Amino acid sequence: MGETKLEELTDREEISFLLHEYCRTLDAMDLDTLAAIFTDDCIVEYGPEDRLQSHGKAAIRQGLERLWRWKRTSHHLSNIQIRFTGADQANAVSYIIAWHERPDGGTGTIWGQYHDTFLRTPAGWRLGRRRQTMNGNDAGFTVNVFPSERRQPPAGWVAPVIDRPATTR
Amino acid sequence: MGETKLEELTDREEISFLLHEYCRTLDAMDLDTLAAIFTDDCIVEYGPEDRLQSHGKAAIRQGLERLWRWKRTSHHLSNIQIRFTGADQANAVSYIIAWHERPDGGTGTIWGQYHDTFLRTPAGWRLGRRRQTMNGNDAGFTVNVFPSERRQPPAGWVAPVIDRPATTR
Amino acid sequence: MGETKLEELTDREEISFLLHEYCRTLDAMDLDTLAAIFTDDCIVEYGPEDRLQSHGKAAIRQGLERLWRWKRTSHHLSNIQIRFTGADQANAVSYIIAWHERPDGGTGTIWGQYHDTFLRTPAGWRLGRRRQTMNGNDAGFTVNVFPSERRQPPAGWVAPVIDRPATTR
Repeated sequence: MGETKLEELTDREEISFLLHEYCRTLDAMDLDTLAAIFTDDCIVEYGPEDRLQSHGKAAIRQGLERLWRWKRTSHHLSNIQIRFTGADQANAVSYIIAWHERPDGGTGTIWGQYHDTFLRTPAGWRLGRRRQTMNGNDAGFTVNVFPSERRQPPAGWVAPVIDRPATTR
Repeated sequence: MGETKLEELTDREEISFLLHEYCRTLDAMDLDTLAAIFTDDCIVEYGPEDRLQSHGKAAIRQGLERLWRWKRTSHHLSNIQIRFTGADQANAVSYIIAWHERPDGGTGTIWGQYHDTFLRTPAGWRLGRRRQTMNGNDAGFTVNVFPSERRQPPAGWVAPVIDRPATTR
Repeated sequence: MGETKLEELTDREEISFLLHEYCRTLDAMDLDTLAAIFTDDCIVEYGPEDRLQSHGKAAIRQGLERLWRWKRTSHHLSNIQIRFTGADQANAVSYIIAWHERPDGGTGTIWGQYHDTFLRTPAGWRLGRRRQTMNGNDAGFTVNVFPSERRQPPAGWVAPVIDRPATTR
């Protein structure tokens, strides 16, 4: 412990700040500030379609202009887990609830994850790679995001009775 | 780095604790413990109307009694970003999902932000100023909270096709 | 301050990691990795019914197989408050939004809290006791979870007018 551990905690703080800054600037549609979070050659993949993948900071900035099709958005980030894979590199997994409202008042919500790689650059930590996955979505959210992985039950598994009978609710 | 950086991380921990304590005590309607989070002369503004603004700890405590008009509430805080603006002062932005249920079973949810100023007092950090803004809300949440700022698209911006066709959902 | 404070911050980081690991592994139904979060003799109580209580790591693992009755889940954890009650023990309160989707597409969401005891073991921090409570739920979530405590208004309390008139919404 000591200096090295303190530096690690500081690195965690800086990476967490960037994760939150992405949300804040995206909801404010402050895309210049948002673009500064990324490395110049970053790769972002929201889903398997070409239109959901961007290579390079300028392309990411331009791609995220698509959020103007929503009237309001709110990105709530939590469950941050950071693992350092070298002195200047870290993997981060975090959870996101992203609420979106269309101009007609309809809404779409995604319950998802960000799987990220952060890199330490001379200017500080930057986001070098992001892949979004989707744990769940409501009917109003129709973007083709990668599904999160979920293991299936063993063959022959039978669901137990857990919920209250409807008559006692 | 060293002692100063360690003190800063400790300050961040203490401020984060207070942000969470506000939520926990508000959902429990433990208003005495809640009031102790604030400075004596704190200013809280939830919206532009007089009834949504309180000056002083006693007024805040009294004002928050209005949450008894809900049967149950749940305040989920995330996206904490703290910036120190002096040795004894910090600005904090955080995100809040606040779910409310009326006695008749109807619910209202706000997707918002807290913009706070924390001050170091002899008794520890205290919340000196809070302004809430609203990224979004559902039809059941009808309090007149300040809107969060969001930049508008440049003139002539055309929305791209992103969502899946309805036939493939 | 110094070494002791640094160790405390590191302990907080490790405990927070486990809180998030529970969510991630549960949503992935990676129950072997999930079980490793707990002590061998842990006690978990989700509600007052026998079927919602488990004693021991093996029973917890088996009990959580019930989440396979959902098609998809997403557990978003926030509001972490950790208090150390000894050199090797800590109490933690955290908030959870747990979204669940049934095979028929219906969903159930709980807005709740985890009240946990963590213990330092030779292998690191482990979760020794968990009690879940429910701040709120929607109609689709029908598990009989303990209610969170909420104080009632004083006798004669009258609700003020806060919400916008319906005509101005």
